[in-house]
Amino acid sequence: MRSKLFVPGIRPELFAKALAGAADAVSIDLEDAVPEDRKDEARAAVGALLRSAEACSSGKLIIVRVNPLGSPHFDADLRAISGPALGMVNLPKPGEAADVRAALEAMDAAGLPDTLPLLANIETPAALRRAAEIGAAHPRVAGLQLGLGDLFEPAGIDRRIPANVHAAMFQLSLAAAESGVFCCDGAFPDIKDEAGFRAEAHMARALGFIGKSCIHPSQIAAANEIFQPDPSQVDQARRIVAAAEAAEALGRAAFVVDGQMIDPPFLQRARRLLLAAQGK
Amino acid sequence: MRSKLFVPGIRPELFAKALAGAADAVSIDLEDAVPEDRKDEARAAVGALLRSAEACSSGKLIIVRVNPLGSPHFDADLRAISGPALGMVNLPKPGEAADVRAALEAMDAAGLPDTLPLLANIETPAALRRAAEIGAAHPRVAGLQLGLGDLFEPAGIDRRIPANVHAAMFQLSLAAAESGVFCCDGAFPDIKDEAGFRAEAHMARALGFIGKSCIHPSQIAAANEIFQPDPSQVDQARRIVAAAEAAEALGRAAFVVDGQMIDPPFLQRARRLLLAAQGK
Amino acid sequence: MRSKLFVPGIRPELFAKALAGAADAVSIDLEDAVPEDRKDEARAAVGALLRSAEACSSGKLIIVRVNPLGSPHFDADLRAISGPALGMVNLPKPGEAADVRAALEAMDAAGLPDTLPLLANIETPAALRRAAEIGAAHPRVAGLQLGLGDLFEPAGIDRRIPANVHAAMFQLSLAAAESGVFCCDGAFPDIKDEAGFRAEAHMARALGFIGKSCIHPSQIAAANEIFQPDPSQVDQARRIVAAAEAAEALGRAAFVVDGQMIDPPFLQRARRLLLAAQGK
Repeated sequence: MRSKLFVPGIRPELFAKALAGAADAVSIDLEDAVPEDRKDEARAAVGALLRSAEACSSGKLIIVRVNPLGSPHFDADLRAISGPALGMVNLPKPGEAADVRAALEAMDAAGLPDTLPLLANIETPAALRRAAEIGAAHPRVAGLQLGLGDLFEPAGIDRRIPANVHAAMFQLSLAAAESGVFCCDGAFPDIKDEAGFRAEAHMARALGFIGKSCIHPSQIAAANEIFQPDPSQVDQARRIVAAAEAAEALGRAAFVVDGQMIDPPFLQRARRLLLAAQGK
Repeated sequence: MRSKLFVPGIRPELFAKALAGAADAVSIDLEDAVPEDRKDEARAAVGALLRSAEACSSGKLIIVRVNPLGSPHFDADLRAISGPALGMVNLPKPGEAADVRAALEAMDAAGLPDTLPLLANIETPAALRRAAEIGAAHPRVAGLQLGLGDLFEPAGIDRRIPANVHAAMFQLSLAAAESGVFCCDGAFPDIKDEAGFRAEAHMARALGFIGKSCIHPSQIAAANEIFQPDPSQVDQARRIVAAAEAAEALGRAAFVVDGQMIDPPFLQRARRLLLAAQGK
Repeated sequence: MRSKLFVPGIRPELFAKALAGAADAVSIDLEDAVPEDRKDEARAAVGALLRSAEACSSGKLIIVRVNPLGSPHFDADLRAISGPALGMVNLPKPGEAADVRAALEAMDAAGLPDTLPLLANIETPAALRRAAEIGAAHPRVAGLQLGLGDLFEPAGIDRRIPANVHAAMFQLSLAAAESGVFCCDGAFPDIKDEAGFRAEAHMARALGFIGKSCIHPSQIAAANEIFQPDPSQVDQARRIVAAAEAAEALGRAAFVVDGQMIDPPFLQRARRLLLAAQGK
């Protein structure tokens, strides 16, 4: 999931182009990009997409960002997005692990597949402080996504200062590693500032993030390039995962690759790398 | 509270000038700036000031930094500073939320007004780790103030390195935002280094701090300039707070400003901005 | 302990030179530097060293890094390293305070002296988050050591970026200060990059670290130079510790040096400084 293209749920005319584009994933939004009085309209459009043959055959990972747990829209969102093309639910503004579990229960109650993975946004100070617990809240949490806008603006923190962005990213990266899930970066707001987008993406890459949200198709190529894993790392990751599977088949806990004992964190890293390399 | 002028409690000859000066607040110290054998003398001087007509009519926010909870001076300080001009108590070195609550109980027991707000100094590693809990310890906690000297010196951390200062400020800013209180910066020790003062103030401003302590009147103008909120932000904050009040009057929880739903953190930010803009 | 020379347990031919060298401490490794099938061989060599007259008379602090608690090698390591020259045990990968206490119990059960200090490696995200608790787990924890390789690699964090290293060091330094123990820096992997070693050492020094691991004798001189405490600081620390002892002898809790009340954190800092100045 080197790149994830963001598409407002009220812009169905953009769906086909997004699915045909170069982004590894498409994230359709029902939250901030949809005004309060157009939530129903967006839900209908997104539901239709997720049940369409085009979406199912696109081979694209389709993510839907629903409205926050506790908002008046949450349950209606979950009921509307049932469809075979739905690949992941993006949950905004969880504050703690219990919110993630409550969201998964609501997803189950709404009849969504009980294997559907969750991408949890970390976008409040409380959530950043508890990000390791949120990532570990449930095995269905696949990743954590940084939401700098919501995190920084109420605190009055200027996101144009790289050191500010770095501090938040560093904390999220360690939390994701601790909980064994991936972390991915949020959007860069200024579409025209390509150098700024690239700088933020390089910073995220160097902190272990697997990809970045794009709010315009013009940002996708840079994200795909910057988050492309090194071939030598991918090769090593493949050998680590293969050795892990062989060890498991033999009933052995410990195994060695390239002369080194592979600890669980390194195995998790290898798995995340392969995921990223597959463009997922 | 863009600027807060620090005045030792044993220098009563400076009080009148401080009250007439350009600082948004005056902070009179009974702690580190007063030697052990002159605490009584300082208490008498500060008490007289707080009961004086000059102080009451100055329109200045007067803060008193007392000695730490648990020190032999704490209760005597509280009994001495009763007076109509006392606007806020500054508590040094709380270690956790329970310390804040104990301090407020002691303030009540000493007969201070039960609405008097508290400014809690974050100046130990334990306090920084628990700053969000300290900020949320009680509704009377108005803000958190960074104390870099006490925080860094025992740890051997060099405060002349901007990255060191930034890391502490970032953590405090998120904690203040999480607990819904303001954060303000401590003093800059080298009076002659104006560029250093300004750089630290700019860093704090970009991290959401509302102001900075000044240990010399020559630092006030820079603080007032750097922490002055942008007029457009102040204007938006005013509209957010007005919309919140209108929504509350109608019994509605949610409301929209400039087409955006306003979440509680954004409302808190708006309120803090207006406070800062009022020079308080 | 300005410098700590790292020697693989399977390289006994290097032991004598290491003991005669300029490093303040020698750290012999039974963990990562020893392949799985040579652990017994390494244990035998290290045990022989620790019971040798040469090691006892070297005056050097000898530390042994054992395998992690929970690994199949841990107990055998503890039984093998009993010997009068053992000065400290270095515990890799504790995840929480309970791990430290379990390790100390296992050390006692293995017959090691019940006063032997422990150096706990902080090298997982969970451990970094709980480093203050790990440092305070037991009075026998003498220090915390940063392990950037294990901390960063599974998270995909690039340790060649100074800001990444700084963020981890800062967090560890505050945790060490909170728990009243020293912190020391791990190894710098590129032996040929002297400028890189020096830059990382300077960063650590400015964050209060007392020394740095060396993986080659060529790195020792730089570590000894960079972590040498300032004579004026050492002098002040000496006066603080002397005043503390005098106050204790008189049964007084509080004491003043250079006109300032000395709080416990400052006393701890003085003690750590003297330790560092003694080259220990």
